[in-house]
Amino acid sequence: MDTDRLLRELTDFLRIPSVSTNASHNADCRAAAEWVAGELRRLGCREVQFLASDTHPVVWGVGPEVPGAPTLLIYGHYDVQPPEPLDEWTTAPFQPTVRDGKLFARGAADDKGQVFCLLKAIQAPPGRPQLNFRFLIEGEEEYGSRVLFELLRREPERTRADAVLIADMAYVAPRWPAVYTTLRGLCYAEINVRTAKSDLHSGEFGGAAPNAHEELARLLGRLKTPDGKVHVPGFYAPVKRPSKAELATWKRLPFKEAEFLKHRVQAKALTGLKSYSVLERLWALPTFEIHGITGGFTGDGAKTVIPAEATAKVSLRLVPDQKLKVVERQLAAAVRRLAPKHVQASVKFLHGADPATVKVTHPAFKLLDQAFREVVGRGTVPARAGGSIPVVPVLGKGGAPVILTGIGLPDDRLHAPNEKLDLKQLWDGIKVFRRFYELLGT
Amino acid sequence: MDTDRLLRELTDFLRIPSVSTNASHNADCRAAAEWVAGELRRLGCREVQFLASDTHPVVWGVGPEVPGAPTLLIYGHYDVQPPEPLDEWTTAPFQPTVRDGKLFARGAADDKGQVFCLLKAIQAPPGRPQLNFRFLIEGEEEYGSRVLFELLRREPERTRADAVLIADMAYVAPRWPAVYTTLRGLCYAEINVRTAKSDLHSGEFGGAAPNAHEELARLLGRLKTPDGKVHVPGFYAPVKRPSKAELATWKRLPFKEAEFLKHRVQAKALTGLKSYSVLERLWALPTFEIHGITGGFTGDGAKTVIPAEATAKVSLRLVPDQKLKVVERQLAAAVRRLAPKHVQASVKFLHGADPATVKVTHPAFKLLDQAFREVVGRGTVPARAGGSIPVVPVLGKGGAPVILTGIGLPDDRLHAPNEKLDLKQLWDGIKVFRRFYELLGT
Repeated sequence: MDTDRLLRELTDFLRIPSVSTNASHNADCRAAAEWVAGELRRLGCREVQFLASDTHPVVWGVGPEVPGAPTLLIYGHYDVQPPEPLDEWTTAPFQPTVRDGKLFARGAADDKGQVFCLLKAIQAPPGRPQLNFRFLIEGEEEYGSRVLFELLRREPERTRADAVLIADMAYVAPRWPAVYTTLRGLCYAEINVRTAKSDLHSGEFGGAAPNAHEELARLLGRLKTPDGKVHVPGFYAPVKRPSKAELATWKRLPFKEAEFLKHRVQAKALTGLKSYSVLERLWALPTFEIHGITGGFTGDGAKTVIPAEATAKVSLRLVPDQKLKVVERQLAAAVRRLAPKHVQASVKFLHGADPATVKVTHPAFKLLDQAFREVVGRGTVPARAGGSIPVVPVLGKGGAPVILTGIGLPDDRLHAPNEKLDLKQLWDGIKVFRRFYELLGT
Repeated sequence: MDTDRLLRELTDFLRIPSVSTNASHNADCRAAAEWVAGELRRLGCREVQFLASDTHPVVWGVGPEVPGAPTLLIYGHYDVQPPEPLDEWTTAPFQPTVRDGKLFARGAADDKGQVFCLLKAIQAPPGRPQLNFRFLIEGEEEYGSRVLFELLRREPERTRADAVLIADMAYVAPRWPAVYTTLRGLCYAEINVRTAKSDLHSGEFGGAAPNAHEELARLLGRLKTPDGKVHVPGFYAPVKRPSKAELATWKRLPFKEAEFLKHRVQAKALTGLKSYSVLERLWALPTFEIHGITGGFTGDGAKTVIPAEATAKVSLRLVPDQKLKVVERQLAAAVRRLAPKHVQASVKFLHGADPATVKVTHPAFKLLDQAFREVVGRGTVPARAGGSIPVVPVLGKGGAPVILTGIGLPDDRLHAPNEKLDLKQLWDGIKVFRRFYELLGT
C-alpha cells in the first residue's frame, strides 16, 4: 500500500471542518460532500449525485455494473461533531497530525477515516472486486439524519441490496474486532423553563422572585435520581435485560472496569445504576444526559441578574423496544409534571432515532468474520453499542443484513477532544474490507 | 431649567457603553471617566484627578474652596451593568431614547442619570451653593469596587467630610422618596465542578460516566431548598429580624404584594421564605441566586457530550451582621461538604462587599427631608435596600453621615433590559439636591 499517498488523501478529507450542526459550516459540509463525490468518480461510479441538497447533501453513488454479482450498499457520513472545547486539543482538530502512530483530527475515526477505509479497499490491488457497489454517504448523521430519513421514505429502493456495510464502530478492545447487534436510539431535546417576563436585578428582587436557573437545576435533579435512574414514568417499561447467553458472552470480553475508569472515563468513580454491570449500563440501559445550559449571564466577570429563562440541552439514549415517539411524549409529560406551577416548562425535540437491533446470522457476517480472521488473526465478537446511528433501522428495512462494524479502537475519543485513529487499524481495515469484498463477490 | 440642553448632555454620557466587568469596554470606561472629569472641570474644581488609573479610574474632584462652609462628599459611579440580553431591549441600550416621558438606556438610573442629577444641581441657578464639594466617582461599582477599596485603605483622608451624599437608589414608591438604613452586602462566586479529565461521548459513556452538569445541578439544588432557604451551615446565625417598630413602618409603605408580582416581578408567583413578608425577604434576609452556567455544549443544534466540567456564577446577598469573609468560608465549606466524593468541587470568589448599616439621625437627614418636602411634597421615609453598594461602609468610616437616597422609581429595571429614568424624577431631582445643597450650606 502506498501509505504516504493514502495518508495525504485522508488528511485532505479531515482538514475540512464539516460540522453539520453549525450553520456557519454549511460550505465546509458541501466541500466534504464534494470530496466524497470526487472519490466515487475515481472509483468509476456510473452515477454520482447530491440528493436532498438543500441542506447537507447525501452523496449517492452507483458503482460499475457487474452482472450477476451481489449488491453491497455502503453507508457512512462525512459530517463531524463540533470540536469544542478547543483548548483541550493538543493539536488543532482540523489540522490532522500524526503522533506515535496515531492520526489526530476531528472525524479521524467518526466517520471520515472509516469511510475512507471502505472506499480505498475498493481501489486496493489487484483490481476492482466483483460487486455492485451502492454508496449513501450522508452529512447529517451527527444531527439526526433527518434529510436521509425523508429521502429513504420517498425512495426506499435506494437501500435495495444484498448487504449493507457500515464501518462507524470500533473493536471492543485492541485486537478484538466486533459486529454490533444493537445500537441505542437517541432523543435529543431542549428543556426550557421561564419564570418571569425578563431578567431581574438580584439586589432588588433576590429573595422573592423565582430564578429560572434554580428551577431548571431542580427540575433536572428530579428527572434523574442521584443513583442514575431516569425519573420519567413509563421510561423503563419496555426495557428487557439481555439474555443470559448474551451476558455470558460479555463476561468473556477483555473489559476491565478499573481500566475503563482509569484510562477511558478518566474520572474518580463510575456512576449509574450500580446493580447492573458497567457493560449493561453502557449497552442495554437507556440514559439521560445534560449537555449544556444557556440563559442568564455567562460572560466574563460578574453580573447580578436573576435569569428569567434557562434552557438545558439534554438527550436520552434508548435501548431496543423503546420507541422515540413514545419517549418524547413521556419526557414532555414528566417535565410538565415535575415543574412547579409557577414555572413555565416546555420541551423542544431537536432530533432523535429509534434504537436498532441487528441479527448477525446472515451468511455475510461469516464472510466478514473470515476477513478479520485472515487479516488480524481473530474473528468478530458480537457486541452491543452505546452510541446511535439514526438511520440504521431504515437501512435494514428492505431485508438486507446490516453489517455494523468498524476499525476504530475504544480509546479513539469520538465526540471528544483529541479524537484519533490508529494508523495500524486504518491499514488493517483497508485489507479487511478488501478481503470481505472479495469473499462476498465470489 | 434648560431641559433640552441637559437631556442632550445626559444622552452623551449614557451613550458610552462603560461596562466595567467586560475588558473589551476598557476604553469606554475611560471615556466615561473623561466625561465626568470634564463636568468637574466645568464646575470649577481646583483638582480633578484620575486615581488608581491602571484599571477603570476613580475620578477625584475638589470643588472651589468656600472658607467656613461644610464639606460634602459626593459618591457615584460611571460604570454600568452588561446590557445583555440585547434582544429584550425595545431600543438599543446605548442609544438613549425618550418614550412617554421616560429616558431608556443602560445606566439611565444606575447610576449615570443620578450622578448627572447631583452635578447639575450644583450648576443650577442662581449660583454655586456655599459648600466645599468633594467628588469620588468610580468605575467599578458593578464589579466590587476593589480599586476604590484599596485606594481608601491607603488614603482614608479622601472621605473626610461633614456628610456623604449618594444618589444611587430609588423612591420606595411613586411620590415616596426614601433614605436607606441598610444595604445588603454581596458575595459573588463561581462554583466549579469537574467530574472527568475531559468531555466524553454520551453514546460511548452514557450510563456509567459522571456528568458535570448533572452534579452541578444537584449541588445547586442542595445549596438552596425549594422553599428558598440557603443550605449553608452558619449562614443565618448572625441574621437579626428587624425591630417591631421598623416592621410597623414598612407596613405603612404603599407596597402591595399583588402589584409587585404583576408589574415588577412579572412572574406567576413569588418565591422565597414564605413565613417572612416580601419586604423582609427583599431587605432583611440574605439570598442565594444562580446567574448563569457554563460548560458542555451550548451552541446551536445538538452535540451529545457528557460535560467534564461545569461552572455556575452565583451570588449571595448579605444582611447586617453577616460578614463577607465569613460567608466566603461558609460557602466554600458547604460546597465541599455537599459535593459527592467523586466530584472535584471548588469555589472562586469574584468580588463582594459587607452589608452596610446607616443611622439616619444626623441633622443632615432632616435637611434632605425638607428639600424633598419643598420640591415633591413629601419627606423621606426610612427604608432598607436589597441591593449593594460595596464601598458604602468605607465611606462612613470617618464618622460622617452617609446619606443614601435617590430619585429613581421602583420600576426603573436596574440591571435588566429597558432600564429607564422618568424625566420628571430627573428634573425634580436636580431641584431637590439643589435645595439640599442650599440648606446644608446655610
